[in-house]
Amino acid sequence: MLDRIRIVLIGTSHPGNIGGTARAMHNMGLADLALVSPRCEVVTADSVSRASGADALVHQARVVDSLEDAVSDCSLVVGASARSRTLPWPMITPRELGARLPKELAQPQARIALVFGREDSGLSNAELQRCHAHVHIPTNPDFSSLNLAAAVQVLAYECRLSWIEQPDAAPEQSDEELSQPLATHEELEHYFAHLERTLVGIGFHDPATPRQLMARLRRMTLRSRPERMELNILRGILSATEKATGQKSLGGRTGNSSCDAEDDAPHK
Amino acid sequence: MLDRIRIVLIGTSHPGNIGGTARAMHNMGLADLALVSPRCEVVTADSVSRASGADALVHQARVVDSLEDAVSDCSLVVGASARSRTLPWPMITPRELGARLPKELAQPQARIALVFGREDSGLSNAELQRCHAHVHIPTNPDFSSLNLAAAVQVLAYECRLSWIEQPDAAPEQSDEELSQPLATHEELEHYFAHLERTLVGIGFHDPATPRQLMARLRRMTLRSRPERMELNILRGILSATEKATGQKSLGGRTGNSSCDAEDDAPHK
Repeated sequence: MLDRIRIVLIGTSHPGNIGGTARAMHNMGLADLALVSPRCEVVTADSVSRASGADALVHQARVVDSLEDAVSDCSLVVGASARSRTLPWPMITPRELGARLPKELAQPQARIALVFGREDSGLSNAELQRCHAHVHIPTNPDFSSLNLAAAVQVLAYECRLSWIEQPDAAPEQSDEELSQPLATHEELEHYFAHLERTLVGIGFHDPATPRQLMARLRRMTLRSRPERMELNILRGILSATEKATGQKSLGGRTGNSSCDAEDDAPHK
Repeated sequence: MLDRIRIVLIGTSHPGNIGGTARAMHNMGLADLALVSPRCEVVTADSVSRASGADALVHQARVVDSLEDAVSDCSLVVGASARSRTLPWPMITPRELGARLPKELAQPQARIALVFGREDSGLSNAELQRCHAHVHIPTNPDFSSLNLAAAVQVLAYECRLSWIEQPDAAPEQSDEELSQPLATHEELEHYFAHLERTLVGIGFHDPATPRQLMARLRRMTLRSRPERMELNILRGILSATEKATGQKSLGGRTGNSSCDAEDDAPHK
């Protein structure tokens, strides 16, 4: 899908912006860059430097004379625009653009162009009127002019998100986090019992006047959804505390038979 | 809401990226920029040129020596990161970050920091472990290194969308939970320092062979987003442990002057 989204820059003045655009595109998995009548050299030290490894896109960019030439094979042409001009045009947000992409690109031959104007004056009215829709990146009304490569970055980011969120897109690798088993209820209860004994032992807690102490500690601990390995560390700390204060580690290890030996041991 | 979101750049090498960051921020309505130990001059022809009218943010940027100094008053610290390292940390997408902002900023004194690392090496593990969560901008796996200002642009864009989409900026009805002030970064760091001293004192931890102990304890604690009052209880437990084991409670209460006396006292 991403290989059928073209970025079109019209009348760009600064080679650095072409390089920055190439980098933003490659970062997001886009590769098709067309330059309409650039007002600067395309391949320069500055464009290659800003491309920062994505200079292949600069070298391969297609340079053409007119917007027509750049988008003739596209089934959807969207122009990046500030607020709409004299003639209101269908205006979408970058997020709405992203939401439309899968459907727009459902047919294998479909191609989309995202068109960006000049650094100083944007797209002309004639150019805007060649677009199916205009996309406006929300900005601070007091300072609304985005850097060209930054504008490309935002739209390319929305394209990538749209692609990732597609049902049959390549699955992102799953969070490692989730592969760690969480502590069971039983393990948590053994921990809380151990914690309370230890707090009594060090003179911090008196069950006769409990106030809300254990409740508060429970709430905080449960909120963090501890993994089994983390709970083992906490129990190790309690046992070390009991040992250091000369308490008998009464059943300190009860119900903890499933401890991961590596992390149950004192950390030293 | 946007005025309570801080962008923190650590060890930036290129003035142009500081300027580009300032422009991206101002475009999206952010204004609070902190620079931790920049490895370049901040105000240069290049940074002012790339700021392109947002150079006030460059001039006003706060330059500090450490991440601590930059985020001490923040209730949520999110680090921009590539995929998770040795120790998996809570990882969110830029969009999830945006979705969380209204709730995170519901309390008027709440502040959020978004932290970005060096152009060449990102954030260190120590820096990442000072964050509540990491945010990963989805990128092309074959070319994943975003330009610094481009990364700021994407997250700032999500911040702005989140703000725009707020229903009337009407503060969410607060969960009971939210009516309790969360611990600040600084309070958390005092707690972690105190915890580490205590673990050394009871013979559980040897800083010479730290393994991942403190990192694991940090991760679990930060995940639970402790309230100030809860942290005071934990510090009270540490002090009681030190007392019970005959350790000197060296600076155990440093930086804890704002303790709620009721809950800081031993619970007995």
